[in-house]
Amino acid sequence: MSKIRLGILGGGEDSLIGILHRVAANMFDQFEIVGGVFDVQHEKSLKFGEKLQLDSSRIYKDLDDMIAKEAKLPENQKIQAVSVLTPNFLHFPMAKQLLENGYNVICEKPLTITYEEAKILNEIQQKNNTIFAVTYTYTGYPMIRQMKTMIANGEIGKIQKVDVQYYQGWINPLIHDKEKRSNTWRLDPEKSGISCCIGDIGTHAYNMAEYVTGLNVDKVLADLNYLYEDNPMDIDGTVLLRFQENIKGVLRASQIATGEENNFTVQVYGDNGGLKWEQENPNYLYLLKEGMALQVLKPGHEYNSEFSLEGTKLPPGHPEGIFDSMGNIYYGVAMAIKDRSKHEGAYPKLNDGLRGMNFIEKTVDSHKKGNVWINLED
Amino acid sequence: MSKIRLGILGGGEDSLIGILHRVAANMFDQFEIVGGVFDVQHEKSLKFGEKLQLDSSRIYKDLDDMIAKEAKLPENQKIQAVSVLTPNFLHFPMAKQLLENGYNVICEKPLTITYEEAKILNEIQQKNNTIFAVTYTYTGYPMIRQMKTMIANGEIGKIQKVDVQYYQGWINPLIHDKEKRSNTWRLDPEKSGISCCIGDIGTHAYNMAEYVTGLNVDKVLADLNYLYEDNPMDIDGTVLLRFQENIKGVLRASQIATGEENNFTVQVYGDNGGLKWEQENPNYLYLLKEGMALQVLKPGHEYNSEFSLEGTKLPPGHPEGIFDSMGNIYYGVAMAIKDRSKHEGAYPKLNDGLRGMNFIEKTVDSHKKGNVWINLED
Amino acid sequence: MSKIRLGILGGGEDSLIGILHRVAANMFDQFEIVGGVFDVQHEKSLKFGEKLQLDSSRIYKDLDDMIAKEAKLPENQKIQAVSVLTPNFLHFPMAKQLLENGYNVICEKPLTITYEEAKILNEIQQKNNTIFAVTYTYTGYPMIRQMKTMIANGEIGKIQKVDVQYYQGWINPLIHDKEKRSNTWRLDPEKSGISCCIGDIGTHAYNMAEYVTGLNVDKVLADLNYLYEDNPMDIDGTVLLRFQENIKGVLRASQIATGEENNFTVQVYGDNGGLKWEQENPNYLYLLKEGMALQVLKPGHEYNSEFSLEGTKLPPGHPEGIFDSMGNIYYGVAMAIKDRSKHEGAYPKLNDGLRGMNFIEKTVDSHKKGNVWINLED
Amino acid sequence: MSKIRLGILGGGEDSLIGILHRVAANMFDQFEIVGGVFDVQHEKSLKFGEKLQLDSSRIYKDLDDMIAKEAKLPENQKIQAVSVLTPNFLHFPMAKQLLENGYNVICEKPLTITYEEAKILNEIQQKNNTIFAVTYTYTGYPMIRQMKTMIANGEIGKIQKVDVQYYQGWINPLIHDKEKRSNTWRLDPEKSGISCCIGDIGTHAYNMAEYVTGLNVDKVLADLNYLYEDNPMDIDGTVLLRFQENIKGVLRASQIATGEENNFTVQVYGDNGGLKWEQENPNYLYLLKEGMALQVLKPGHEYNSEFSLEGTKLPPGHPEGIFDSMGNIYYGVAMAIKDRSKHEGAYPKLNDGLRGMNFIEKTVDSHKKGNVWINLED
Repeated sequence: MSKIRLGILGGGEDSLIGILHRVAANMFDQFEIVGGVFDVQHEKSLKFGEKLQLDSSRIYKDLDDMIAKEAKLPENQKIQAVSVLTPNFLHFPMAKQLLENGYNVICEKPLTITYEEAKILNEIQQKNNTIFAVTYTYTGYPMIRQMKTMIANGEIGKIQKVDVQYYQGWINPLIHDKEKRSNTWRLDPEKSGISCCIGDIGTHAYNMAEYVTGLNVDKVLADLNYLYEDNPMDIDGTVLLRFQENIKGVLRASQIATGEENNFTVQVYGDNGGLKWEQENPNYLYLLKEGMALQVLKPGHEYNSEFSLEGTKLPPGHPEGIFDSMGNIYYGVAMAIKDRSKHEGAYPKLNDGLRGMNFIEKTVDSHKKGNVWINLED
Repeated sequence: MSKIRLGILGGGEDSLIGILHRVAANMFDQFEIVGGVFDVQHEKSLKFGEKLQLDSSRIYKDLDDMIAKEAKLPENQKIQAVSVLTPNFLHFPMAKQLLENGYNVICEKPLTITYEEAKILNEIQQKNNTIFAVTYTYTGYPMIRQMKTMIANGEIGKIQKVDVQYYQGWINPLIHDKEKRSNTWRLDPEKSGISCCIGDIGTHAYNMAEYVTGLNVDKVLADLNYLYEDNPMDIDGTVLLRFQENIKGVLRASQIATGEENNFTVQVYGDNGGLKWEQENPNYLYLLKEGMALQVLKPGHEYNSEFSLEGTKLPPGHPEGIFDSMGNIYYGVAMAIKDRSKHEGAYPKLNDGLRGMNFIEKTVDSHKKGNVWINLED
Repeated sequence: MSKIRLGILGGGEDSLIGILHRVAANMFDQFEIVGGVFDVQHEKSLKFGEKLQLDSSRIYKDLDDMIAKEAKLPENQKIQAVSVLTPNFLHFPMAKQLLENGYNVICEKPLTITYEEAKILNEIQQKNNTIFAVTYTYTGYPMIRQMKTMIANGEIGKIQKVDVQYYQGWINPLIHDKEKRSNTWRLDPEKSGISCCIGDIGTHAYNMAEYVTGLNVDKVLADLNYLYEDNPMDIDGTVLLRFQENIKGVLRASQIATGEENNFTVQVYGDNGGLKWEQENPNYLYLLKEGMALQVLKPGHEYNSEFSLEGTKLPPGHPEGIFDSMGNIYYGVAMAIKDRSKHEGAYPKLNDGLRGMNFIEKTVDSHKKGNVWINLED
Repeated sequence: MSKIRLGILGGGEDSLIGILHRVAANMFDQFEIVGGVFDVQHEKSLKFGEKLQLDSSRIYKDLDDMIAKEAKLPENQKIQAVSVLTPNFLHFPMAKQLLENGYNVICEKPLTITYEEAKILNEIQQKNNTIFAVTYTYTGYPMIRQMKTMIANGEIGKIQKVDVQYYQGWINPLIHDKEKRSNTWRLDPEKSGISCCIGDIGTHAYNMAEYVTGLNVDKVLADLNYLYEDNPMDIDGTVLLRFQENIKGVLRASQIATGEENNFTVQVYGDNGGLKWEQENPNYLYLLKEGMALQVLKPGHEYNSEFSLEGTKLPPGHPEGIFDSMGNIYYGVAMAIKDRSKHEGAYPKLNDGLRGMNFIEKTVDSHKKGNVWINLED
């Protein structure tokens, strides 16, 4: 079976995440990067394509150009899936166009700038049944997959407490200076939508909470922090969560937790045990049981679920990282493209991105209305 | 200078914490335990006194008996300070009587069952200027003292985020069984006041947040969890905190975090760094600074403040624990009895207990009114 | 039953470890400190006794004075046990005199300066059957006791690898300066015997290896480090160990592991699992089993052995430390004084001190003979 | 500049490490895998090549076939570098043939089966000046590179103690059963040379010790363990190390440390500090300084050296792992192929493999001669 032909939008020389997607795409020998639009400047795009040793005829001027020219290629040469790595505000128009033209899509998060846009994408996709992944990268870690499986299997019983934290400190050096904060694109609603902290990392935590528990959040009560009156975007927040069946949880996110890098933690407690995980040490999963020794599960061991083991390439003791996590998501997409019937949970879906956008808007709404409960479903 | 003569109420054979207070009192050779009432049954009390090799004439029938007889002793034999280790509902009447009779008091937490009671104690103490300590034990750890000093010295700049967590799982095996939960004294409002989780451990977290930051909480918004309709007491909760100057924080407490022991963590972030601490590994203090290596401070090093170093008895590398922390609090009390002018922060004061009771009532109030903001000061 | 009357030699105002022994002695209400010789200067000794509120008639001029005067006291007032906390070279003459006069003894390590001296003490003790403890403090930790019990119960099967490390860095600032190193008493053979590093900390590691495994070391091959030719004492060393039945192990000790505090680790592997422990985090015991999640055992849980649980005073989640460990050893001594038939392993015995002295001499011998195997038993 | 054309020997469907090398080769867009011999069975090789979507004309029957046919290709199509991933005993003949035909080589470790063979390879390479890497994978970790740089820059002063440990437990389930141990290829001298544990993992630890310190080991004294008389291969061992200038160290390796995975640790102490690292948590580097807080350095921060930062693809907080480490080594090889003058330390060289083979032989020799010192240089 041949590799899936992958196109890339964005991810060129100046991109931080381009390499993440390329390594991930190549990891399991499932994709062949064949072309795309790496930069708005065609020249830079061509140069980057040359570096990747791609056929220059597949380096397009823009997405229109790409779609038009690809349409003329023989079926066995056409790009089958496209990674969208462009700035956030371009996710929507590009993903829309790709969907309308029947492409499978791998879209960086956030899916769109508004919930409205996300709903439009969702409607289109439901019609044409393509594969659409949103790269909530952390769901690809083997021990997150193990956590999800264990919870689904009832290992910790009925869930009674969910606690997710995503603390960073990167915005601290920018936020306290009026000029710096007014020049940060993350803090510009035009470019970043209505939320900075919740939009960028709160949404990761929200997605993860639903992913590992299999529960939906029904409503939220948020207390966000803007720190300065002239700052239009939240940079910190605590969100009370109410999951289905009145299960309670809490989500904390911050970009002013000075000195933190990507301190993303997940804690889930049930009536028969607890499970804990930290992104910066992703190869450890902590299982707590009353009256028993704390257990630390690690990747690659046979005691893990098949789903977790699929995400580990070497025997225990060989630490894998974020690139491997993204590789697992690309692998999930590849499997789904080849066989749509399988692989629940193997990659985050458009619906996850859609829910994420809704979460962002309702969370900001809760805050602005005075820290009141807002239902996620109207 | 002679040792301070200490009496003890409660803390006899069946007590868990009696040994904690005795070890702490003896730790720095500052106190001499001379008598008290160890048990409501005088016979058991006498037997326990014998074990401690105390003069049986100093083992009293009850507090009235003790106060009456002690009054007749020569000045240089009289009990000078009394530790109150009795069940919670007895704290108030006993502390009141002790205060009214001029004793210095070391009272286990919670100070009282109601805020009203606490206010009464406070009024009495303000008149007679005795020493009154409430044993929020964790404030005695050397690295908590170091954290407090560093924050006060501006090491992490202006505080912009406070996060405290106190997670336990002990009530999980009781809460899901109707009979068990109806027979747990912690869940009986008559014995435990209006709150279980916030009252027992949330109040520790609240006290610590104020202790290390030097900030006061102005208002709270709470989401508590009772899990069952017939359960009258909260067993889990998240509390949004608003400190003075609009500084935001969050407090999480749980007794249904299954498998957790005393997972009490403190995270404070300022505009110039962050500090983190975990009770179960109390000898590590983490200092985060942008663009610098993470620093791990440990007790006994000269880089620590004098206040922290006072709380360490051996050179670095000799781990100390909760008994040593309580010992530091007793030492603080001893110093204060000898010289009232000094030792700010060296032991938790009546005012801390008072604030704690207020916090509990306002937090429950916030929850019951529908998760709304309640000011701590009326 | 009345408390055991304890005398103390040394441990006065200038002593670091005096407080450790006093807290430990008081911890379980088993001992009453009644007097002793706290300092060679009687005045200082008296002053210190006053601070402890002891009867000045029990503060003696020297050991001769103490023995003579104590002999005249009524039986129910006499000192029953004596803690020897004096400089190392005094351990032998004092312990000898105490033994000859029928006292129970708690002696700081090293037991003596030479193996010869230790053998003499051993002979005396065997005749008169008093209790004699050598304070290898670390053996009192609850998780070390748990480790010992688990190994004895076959939890990890037949032992096939023993690895102990004790790394410190304290001598680094002294060793590189010729004057400083010549003025350090630890590096003066007159005061410290033939070995510095092996004698002070290697012997802890050796004792621990035998304690937790229940195995005896048969022979050693040592490579010691003196760093400078004019330095007569080892400050670092690796010792190959051969236990009974040809089981192999290795012991590493250093005082030039710059920046280390008391990094003492114990790793034991059997054919059915492994156990690991670190002194600086003494409340964690790691159990490794093939193909199973790593297990982390903590003190106070019912899954621990009775022997371990005896050494924990509070429920799980309340960290205890080195003072509590020493307290457990004093408790073991108290139990043994009251009932000689029990409590195997509850305190380190004279025989442990004797073996330790032998180990030191044979280890230095191995090194000096050119890193060759030396049998511990001649 | 075009990508380097890479051929692969071995690494086919049944290979564990094939994916490691492919991911690494692709990671920085420096190599293009063009063909090779993936399996001794040509059909399987062809099938695997098809999976990788390679031109079937570049999938060769064997190495002779490859060399012959490649010679006839135009210069700009020829394979430029070859990864040797075949069973150990094939490393020598294949690497020899490749060197003789002017290929750059990336060879899995161990370089050869005997020191003699390694010397032959070394002689050939010195003549033709090709690039030859031996994949001591762990040297590619960013924090190992940081450690090397810091030591070279004098951050910890003059080295006075080196301690490396590599503990695994994988052979435990095989070694105790006579039949199993006689059927394990690792324990068959024909296939694995004269050493199992030292040859496989001891050599990693040895290489690392020299890599990070920049020091050479002069002589060794080894105590190996075979456990059973009918077992011809060591499965555990401790090796006393003597570096140049009489600096002392110790290397411990085990395959019977039951339950361990890849517990490889590196500790180096100088007269001005210490550095520590653990392979299973490769993103933390611990810096110890007297009287200062412990510092924990992490990848991607600007405080790291340029050499370290080259090995990190994303900002701090994105954990990378063993695949990324190998990717860094491949990148180092690519840079060296393009520009021979640079990149000291960027990949392990033939000389490292040569020294490794010598170390293995001398270590076994030391053990067999009765645990005596053996010079590495005759």
